[in-house]
Amino acid sequence: MIRSVLCDILGIEKPIFQGGMAWIADARLAAAVSEAGGLGLISSINADVRAEIRHARELTRKPFGVNIMLAAPNAAEVAEIVVEEGVSVVTTGAGSPAPYMERWLQAGIRVIPVIASVSYAIKMQQLGATAVIAEGAESGGHVGDIHTLALVPQVVDAVDIPVLAAGGIADGRGAAAAFMLGACGVQVGTRFLVADECRVHDVYKERILKASDIGTIVTGKSLGDAVRSLKTPFSKQFAKMEADPTVSDDELRAFGTGSLKKAVFDGDLAGGSFLAGEVAGLVSRRESAAAIVNDIMDGAEKCLSQAKELLYES
Amino acid sequence: MIRSVLCDILGIEKPIFQGGMAWIADARLAAAVSEAGGLGLISSINADVRAEIRHARELTRKPFGVNIMLAAPNAAEVAEIVVEEGVSVVTTGAGSPAPYMERWLQAGIRVIPVIASVSYAIKMQQLGATAVIAEGAESGGHVGDIHTLALVPQVVDAVDIPVLAAGGIADGRGAAAAFMLGACGVQVGTRFLVADECRVHDVYKERILKASDIGTIVTGKSLGDAVRSLKTPFSKQFAKMEADPTVSDDELRAFGTGSLKKAVFDGDLAGGSFLAGEVAGLVSRRESAAAIVNDIMDGAEKCLSQAKELLYES
Repeated sequence: MIRSVLCDILGIEKPIFQGGMAWIADARLAAAVSEAGGLGLISSINADVRAEIRHARELTRKPFGVNIMLAAPNAAEVAEIVVEEGVSVVTTGAGSPAPYMERWLQAGIRVIPVIASVSYAIKMQQLGATAVIAEGAESGGHVGDIHTLALVPQVVDAVDIPVLAAGGIADGRGAAAAFMLGACGVQVGTRFLVADECRVHDVYKERILKASDIGTIVTGKSLGDAVRSLKTPFSKQFAKMEADPTVSDDELRAFGTGSLKKAVFDGDLAGGSFLAGEVAGLVSRRESAAAIVNDIMDGAEKCLSQAKELLYES
Repeated sequence: MIRSVLCDILGIEKPIFQGGMAWIADARLAAAVSEAGGLGLISSINADVRAEIRHARELTRKPFGVNIMLAAPNAAEVAEIVVEEGVSVVTTGAGSPAPYMERWLQAGIRVIPVIASVSYAIKMQQLGATAVIAEGAESGGHVGDIHTLALVPQVVDAVDIPVLAAGGIADGRGAAAAFMLGACGVQVGTRFLVADECRVHDVYKERILKASDIGTIVTGKSLGDAVRSLKTPFSKQFAKMEADPTVSDDELRAFGTGSLKKAVFDGDLAGGSFLAGEVAGLVSRRESAAAIVNDIMDGAEKCLSQAKELLYES
């Protein structure tokens, strides 16, 4: 097993989080990951977050968390729900958790923000965050400007709290690499898209399984809202419109509205945004969430236990 | 010491290459890296490549190589010079080495192309490459579409020849991470910019030392020529012009012409392109090339030798 302070703090067995993907990360997926020893996360972007939390609790007695997308209109509402429902871990993204920190900390909630820069990591430590998830722009969905291999050591040098690595990790090799960078845990999103317990449409799963190394694209940068997704008719069209000076920002936003749901629930290649990270090309089989957790953590253990064999006495 | 097949093949002590940076990587820098046990590389973009090769040979008896930028007008000329001068290793970038492979292989030259995708790695193996350098887009200078943490394992899975990792590596942690991903060596560029033996202008060195984690920007994507550099008045102006539909591609290209030389030799912040990778924020001190080589490799050894301490018996 991998020794990590994260396990002691959160009462989990394996230092791996499943990313709280909007419209995707529901009770079933989160509970399956937590049951396997990791930390499952329910997204605040779900039809009924309270119902998902209660459902997850029926499925597992192990800890799980809620990822709150702070830029979403329901952020304040979900911020209160997690307190009322006694959720033990909250991860945050797309904004500052400052307005809610006092309330959460008083309720004994562990707050672990997703950050994409050193300065933001320092701010989160000052606010009382338990840890931070340093997410490189290899990840699917909303992305920052710097990538995991360069970001993680810079964040580790800048803060005293534990750092998890996210973005670009889909197997034991990536997780072992993250530990070498000084991370004490990893967050994985893309690989869980093909988990048996994951709700995404079959077309979405098939596209992930077939993706090549250069199968993703970042769009929306001109809107200040850069997002990584699979190359599909929709994302290519979005990129084309984005490069076209005759298309206004409002038109572009309108074109993108609702596109994630169209991918997740309808598998709509022409209208859906199939969010995915650069590691989609490493994902090659459908299996249970537990099998994914175990493959990543067993693989990382194997890499770390054999690391010394790369050395010899000079 | 780190055990690597690369050392046996190339007759070097330490599996680290210094990137063959245009206008920057000259005899003095390359020889210093080779003297320290790594593989120094002279760029084909130098005033007199033959003179640089001969000068390096005066400075070291250890192996060094030449990086040939295949898109440059002098590529065919330099391709012949390396044969005539008996250079033992050639790395290539920005194009296919196919036209020169037979000649080089007959001359006993080890050819190690820089690649940015799985398909290109496979092509290079088919052409007879000794190894490939899988370079993620964290790197300075010309960049591809995928980043090191995601790229390296996908390339390792796809080819049978050794794979080096480049992009996002500036210290022992990054190098150890690369080995976990399955790489058998690393190539480092940005950190050598501040080496005592590096010819870049003092302003260039100062800017690297002061760079933050989000201190770089990618420009030129619209021209099919994406390049990562420090955020400076020049690169910000370039980005602004690139986003402006009234600026033609020809105007944009003209604005960029000669900008690397202006950075390297003049330290010209308004007109120079200060190429640098995302790891610029990790570079904090001037020292000799040998000290850099040793710090990276000793740091990697330390990380790898302590990896097992991250594990416990369950």
